[in-house]
Amino acid sequence: MRAMVTDPAARGLLDDTAVIELGNEALILTHDMMAEGVHWHSNADPADVAWKLVASNLSDLAAKGARPLGVLLGFMLGEDEWDRKFAEGLAVVLKHFNVALLGGDTVTNRGDKRGLGLTALGAATHRPVPSRSGAQVGDLLYVTGTLGDALAGFELIDAGFDEVGPLANAYNRPEPRLVEGQALAPLVHAMMDISDGLLLDAERMASASKVGISIDLSQIPLSAPYISYRGETLESRIQAASWGDDYELLFTTSPEEIIRVTATVVGRVVEGAGLTLYDCDAQIPLPPSLGYQHH
Amino acid sequence: MRAMVTDPAARGLLDDTAVIELGNEALILTHDMMAEGVHWHSNADPADVAWKLVASNLSDLAAKGARPLGVLLGFMLGEDEWDRKFAEGLAVVLKHFNVALLGGDTVTNRGDKRGLGLTALGAATHRPVPSRSGAQVGDLLYVTGTLGDALAGFELIDAGFDEVGPLANAYNRPEPRLVEGQALAPLVHAMMDISDGLLLDAERMASASKVGISIDLSQIPLSAPYISYRGETLESRIQAASWGDDYELLFTTSPEEIIRVTATVVGRVVEGAGLTLYDCDAQIPLPPSLGYQHH
Repeated sequence: MRAMVTDPAARGLLDDTAVIELGNEALILTHDMMAEGVHWHSNADPADVAWKLVASNLSDLAAKGARPLGVLLGFMLGEDEWDRKFAEGLAVVLKHFNVALLGGDTVTNRGDKRGLGLTALGAATHRPVPSRSGAQVGDLLYVTGTLGDALAGFELIDAGFDEVGPLANAYNRPEPRLVEGQALAPLVHAMMDISDGLLLDAERMASASKVGISIDLSQIPLSAPYISYRGETLESRIQAASWGDDYELLFTTSPEEIIRVTATVVGRVVEGAGLTLYDCDAQIPLPPSLGYQHH
Repeated sequence: MRAMVTDPAARGLLDDTAVIELGNEALILTHDMMAEGVHWHSNADPADVAWKLVASNLSDLAAKGARPLGVLLGFMLGEDEWDRKFAEGLAVVLKHFNVALLGGDTVTNRGDKRGLGLTALGAATHRPVPSRSGAQVGDLLYVTGTLGDALAGFELIDAGFDEVGPLANAYNRPEPRLVEGQALAPLVHAMMDISDGLLLDAERMASASKVGISIDLSQIPLSAPYISYRGETLESRIQAASWGDDYELLFTTSPEEIIRVTATVVGRVVEGAGLTLYDCDAQIPLPPSLGYQHH
């Protein structure tokens, strides 16, 4: 289907969102799906599923510096109790992010597993709208927050404990960086959210920008709970940098720019192509998998 | 979930679309889903599924007099051959309606039946944007095209023949009234598309407008193929008026207004509430089911 996406608003699908110029405004439109058995275990809390569905779409808006205008839900009806908990969770997450449910559709599910879809609409707060493709040689590469918490949380949940700790919470209830995205939009050369792992997404940014990116793994920001759980070894940092669901922002800008958002320099934009990894001064080989390949 | 839809843009879910005021423009946003086993038989042509998914969403834009800006697809991956045919059909229908695919998402399906979602975005061509709720006592009630063809087509397909005739085509490849909707938007008091049957949708219009609507069944426009198949009896007209998937436009305007779109007067807006049916001058009781109740 990629071949039929020829409208300039689609940005060649190199971005996670469509950017539509209309009158004086630029609309940001994104649609993410989640499928039972792929994006959530059948025994997951339906309220967590609702949270993640909304948060993952809002994260795409955050990466564009967009102000959310609302969401539309595509919901497959299922077992009453599950649906009720999902609806309660949806109300909670929409209120948390102050986002309106504008409509959508419900359908009966005749199958054994469900799929849910959410469309999020936003308005750009700065033009040009940030994209993956603006990184310039000499830029610093930044990441907001800490990485790997969601990975660690998933492992803990999967192993059957720590369902309410900070790591599990990072997995179940990510906080898209909407405020940071709007503050950064006027300052950045390139920006995207990290949904599939820092390394994979940084490689995509390098490719879209036709530059190289070097990352110093010793600079990967880790949280105290993550360090308690997995330590601060190089391997622990590589894992934190190569798994998804963090929903932090990855961006580049010139070293002179003053960034007023809490963010960590993890690398720089260089000539060439692709990703190069360092541990302090020592170059290290790329891991076999850079991140999580969604479908 | 209805209770959490409080934003004025959602129009209380009384309309099929959200209307979002942004700068000088009014955006029209709609999301419809289709589920295997509910909206399509497992042996349906995937290209027809693609057509209907796009056409049903564009019909919601047509009812707002909107100009389509593009669509986002939420697609559950399945069997390769099915997916390939769907993608080919999608290209055909998007080209037919000159609508851009702006993006979307694909997910692996771990279940035995699939769900598909489409979001359509349009820009209003006239303000105020037509809604279901503007019908005024004394208005004439119009419908575009003919009714019942899709019903007859579904029956023929279900019985295993006539898969390429005009009735089957009306079911598989509906033509949303985009041109007519834009032409009518400045002239109408109320407008909606008929997706669930004339009677059911007219009752919804009466309820939203806080008026009564009387329909003369003898005036229901029928096509020659429909008449050949089911005759012109009162029962045949009631069936044509109480089944969905026609995707014609239903609208009201004052008797003085000159309508330049091909449409048939089927009734009028009256004082009171609800629906009243006539066969010429004789009032007849409402049928047990007014139309198709989707989920």
